[in-house]
Amino acid sequence: MTLVLTLGEPAGIGPEITAAAWRALHRQGPVFCWIGDAGLIPQVPVAHIAAPEEAAACFAEALPVLHRPLPAPVLPGRPSPATAPAVLASIEEAVALARAGRAAAVVTNPVQKAVLTAAGFPHPGHTEFLHTLAPAAPRPVMLLACPELRVVPVTVHEPLRQAIARLTPELIEEVAVIAHDGLRRDFGLPAPRLAVAGLNPHAGEGGSLGREEIEIVAPAVEALRARGIDARGPLPPDTMFTALARPRMDCAICLYHDQALIPLKTLDMAGGVNVTLGLSIIRTSPDHGTALDIAGRGLADASSLIAAIRLAAELAANRERQCS
Amino acid sequence: MTLVLTLGEPAGIGPEITAAAWRALHRQGPVFCWIGDAGLIPQVPVAHIAAPEEAAACFAEALPVLHRPLPAPVLPGRPSPATAPAVLASIEEAVALARAGRAAAVVTNPVQKAVLTAAGFPHPGHTEFLHTLAPAAPRPVMLLACPELRVVPVTVHEPLRQAIARLTPELIEEVAVIAHDGLRRDFGLPAPRLAVAGLNPHAGEGGSLGREEIEIVAPAVEALRARGIDARGPLPPDTMFTALARPRMDCAICLYHDQALIPLKTLDMAGGVNVTLGLSIIRTSPDHGTALDIAGRGLADASSLIAAIRLAAELAANRERQCS
Repeated sequence: MTLVLTLGEPAGIGPEITAAAWRALHRQGPVFCWIGDAGLIPQVPVAHIAAPEEAAACFAEALPVLHRPLPAPVLPGRPSPATAPAVLASIEEAVALARAGRAAAVVTNPVQKAVLTAAGFPHPGHTEFLHTLAPAAPRPVMLLACPELRVVPVTVHEPLRQAIARLTPELIEEVAVIAHDGLRRDFGLPAPRLAVAGLNPHAGEGGSLGREEIEIVAPAVEALRARGIDARGPLPPDTMFTALARPRMDCAICLYHDQALIPLKTLDMAGGVNVTLGLSIIRTSPDHGTALDIAGRGLADASSLIAAIRLAAELAANRERQCS
Repeated sequence: MTLVLTLGEPAGIGPEITAAAWRALHRQGPVFCWIGDAGLIPQVPVAHIAAPEEAAACFAEALPVLHRPLPAPVLPGRPSPATAPAVLASIEEAVALARAGRAAAVVTNPVQKAVLTAAGFPHPGHTEFLHTLAPAAPRPVMLLACPELRVVPVTVHEPLRQAIARLTPELIEEVAVIAHDGLRRDFGLPAPRLAVAGLNPHAGEGGSLGREEIEIVAPAVEALRARGIDARGPLPPDTMFTALARPRMDCAICLYHDQALIPLKTLDMAGGVNVTLGLSIIRTSPDHGTALDIAGRGLADASSLIAAIRLAAELAANRERQCS
């Protein structure tokens, strides 16, 4: 079954990295199609298709496009509220195709949140919108993966002080359980090993460098273990991502954005993939934004989108195997 | 001129990694001697010397030791307050030799802070003690280095909440200036390029994800630039340590312990070196603790101590060149 890619911000690098991903993958797959305006795709042959089921037949020769013409011209680097409805419609259509079993997974191109918000988009972000369209858990959970490491941040896009103040054993447990279930179902790991980070230097050193480990993180780890989940922690944040420690876990549960993102991007900037767990569909996306500063100039690196497409296909195959 | 290594915690891995470092370096150097109890050194030949000036002549054949017998037997993994005075005396003697120009630099073996504290040691740590013995700036500054990256944490061993609350433009500026001066004098960098981290996800995204960047970090960067220092920031913490970004800076100025230590240890656990800037002497140390759990069993990895010895020799040569 084909994967489906969304339009993303048309004035960003989405169209060109989609073309580059097709160029990289058109011989060996995985097969995908794009929902967007075919006129935006640079330099590669395009095949207009009427349904995702037609993608496989033409994928070796051209990028299959479910053509949805935009109502206004697109200037690279200059997002416009006029195209915001099409950006959202593309996401809705992709999710509907995946929910209907007509697409194996959704791979989203980056959006420009400020433009969507200005056009009346009521959600805090892309991920939350997807969760309203296809929920399967109380909240969506962001997992980032590169070949050496998987990380899940318990808190994400909020000021660090606020993120720390919001931490509770229940929040950590809830996020870790959703991560665990996703790792089992979609990553093909029968008993995922979770490594739960501490908050403070040296994980608080027994309370002398902070008490969040004792009061918040340790109870969450106990609760996870009581559920039969293989969870360890609180671990000292600086030593849990070393080359020796990485093979001992399947996923790090991190307490704040940069605790998760710093090690991942330090290891692998180009190939990181964002996976949303807690949805009824499979969704991956590249781990970067719209890159308005270089859009339309042929400079964009498609590595992360290519990795997102490959991982989406792998997760879809795992889920298929689980369910069959 | 010889380097001088301190005893460190005698019940930890110090004696065995010192022996391993001598084994690794005795042919090509750099030459060093150890202040400690010669009876603790396993498996390598030892030369009792009366003064550091004698180290070079015997270094190829044996580990030179300034023999200071301990008052009590040492059980690996079981630190005792009875040896605490000798641990401290060794540090004092090493610093005195360096201050007198009889040793090129001090390389400290790890100490067990709790044992020293129980024996009446009044300082918050090893580094602060060294600063009282050989101050050259208002405060000591910790720099960690591995081949790919140098980082300086502005706040170090304190709870994360407290570290955030303590950040001021003045503190960041003061630490960055000491780092800058040390990079110039000891690392041989005529115009060190400093990359200053933000605190919040995406460096606060213009204030929507936190205001510390606007209120605290940006003013510090401006003040540094007004001094003629090549400082950039506040930078998004997750993308400033990537493979593409690392070559664009000589040192990252980080706001808290793990923001500095996570990328460093993710890249290079074994070879990280701790350098103290703001001292009148050169001091390096391995970037790990006493490893009581494996002490005396021949399992310890001497890579970081070896890297610390090599870096100390390099810094001493640079400082010599600056001053001559």
